[in-house]
Amino acid sequence: MKAKRVPRAQREQQMLDAAVKVFSRSGYHAASMDEIAEECDVSKPMLYLYLGSKEELFAACIRREADRLIARFAEAADPSLDPGEQLYRGLTAFFAFVAEHRDSWIVLYQQARAQGEPVVAEVAAARAEVSGAVTALLRRAVREAGDDLPGPRNADARADRGEAAAMAAIITGAADALAGWVLDTNPEPAEESARRLMSVIWIGLEPRLRGARYGG
Amino acid sequence: MKAKRVPRAQREQQMLDAAVKVFSRSGYHAASMDEIAEECDVSKPMLYLYLGSKEELFAACIRREADRLIARFAEAADPSLDPGEQLYRGLTAFFAFVAEHRDSWIVLYQQARAQGEPVVAEVAAARAEVSGAVTALLRRAVREAGDDLPGPRNADARADRGEAAAMAAIITGAADALAGWVLDTNPEPAEESARRLMSVIWIGLEPRLRGARYGG
Repeated sequence: MKAKRVPRAQREQQMLDAAVKVFSRSGYHAASMDEIAEECDVSKPMLYLYLGSKEELFAACIRREADRLIARFAEAADPSLDPGEQLYRGLTAFFAFVAEHRDSWIVLYQQARAQGEPVVAEVAAARAEVSGAVTALLRRAVREAGDDLPGPRNADARADRGEAAAMAAIITGAADALAGWVLDTNPEPAEESARRLMSVIWIGLEPRLRGARYGG
Repeated sequence: MKAKRVPRAQREQQMLDAAVKVFSRSGYHAASMDEIAEECDVSKPMLYLYLGSKEELFAACIRREADRLIARFAEAADPSLDPGEQLYRGLTAFFAFVAEHRDSWIVLYQQARAQGEPVVAEVAAARAEVSGAVTALLRRAVREAGDDLPGPRNADARADRGEAAAMAAIITGAADALAGWVLDTNPEPAEESARRLMSVIWIGLEPRLRGARYGG
């Protein structure tokens, strides 16, 4: 009776919450549908009926957590701000998300990497979306830098827009690694982690976007 | 007869080569001891006798590949050079290793992350060793920077030595992510990847080590 009073959409969210917690705690392979059903207090057949196999459930978890993370980043990185400030705020939102949703992050970044299809495709799509948001931000920064510069350097800066994707990979990889370091060894406010990362990357990234290179 | 003529140490290396190839191709969970035994042309009992269970074999693969990677980085990062040049050469060696040992890298960074004990402990130890090498290099850079600076900034730089570990996490995470991006989308010489990464991190890292911060 009690189960029937909860609307399906809400019940599904509860199942996903439970699944994220169990996958994070036990790892994908050791996690069982029994454990997940018990965690959210539904029957195993109901869990299968609503969200499919363990693999489909895991893919749904990744999709939801990635969407949440991207929404937080996009909300924070207000395009009316200058690019450095956008990136700083976006990174702060990312580190805050990781601290608040530790289980989500473990599932997204640690559990999800070594799984087979269709999970790999889901993770690749999520990562591409995160990198795409950062790439768009960097391209905007290049465009703005390019507009300020005289002719030839302007052309260099424009040519370098193709490199924004490599820079986005560097930034997202650095942010992932720093988030792991913070969780494991040094809890601190999200702003502090964002400032650490900006202190290393932005001072170098800004001239880089204008065409400066290590080694000249 | 043929099998008996190969010394044990050499035979073990052949088994590890085959295992790395199979784990990289099939993933840890789907890989079978049959497939690995066939790949290196030994019997399955011999494989178990020499290298133990699939889990032990996987841990041995990670240990060997991590040792190789660390040796390459350490060899390249000659401590008599200035820290920027050390880091540049170390990163070049890393990107060259990834390009030459694509299978090793897939096993080390993609397969290994989501496994259970004892593999997780092995991976954590390997990553700590890599980060430790980078941390040592950064601490040396801080010390050198600190020595050049007048009193109060000197003290700031010294206080910041504790941050070297966070910076090392940022650099190794960025290098991992860039290596993945290069393999997946844009094959290029190792020097070029190292220059890309140095262009972003070093120009910012050097003033950072002297106490400069994003946002002042």
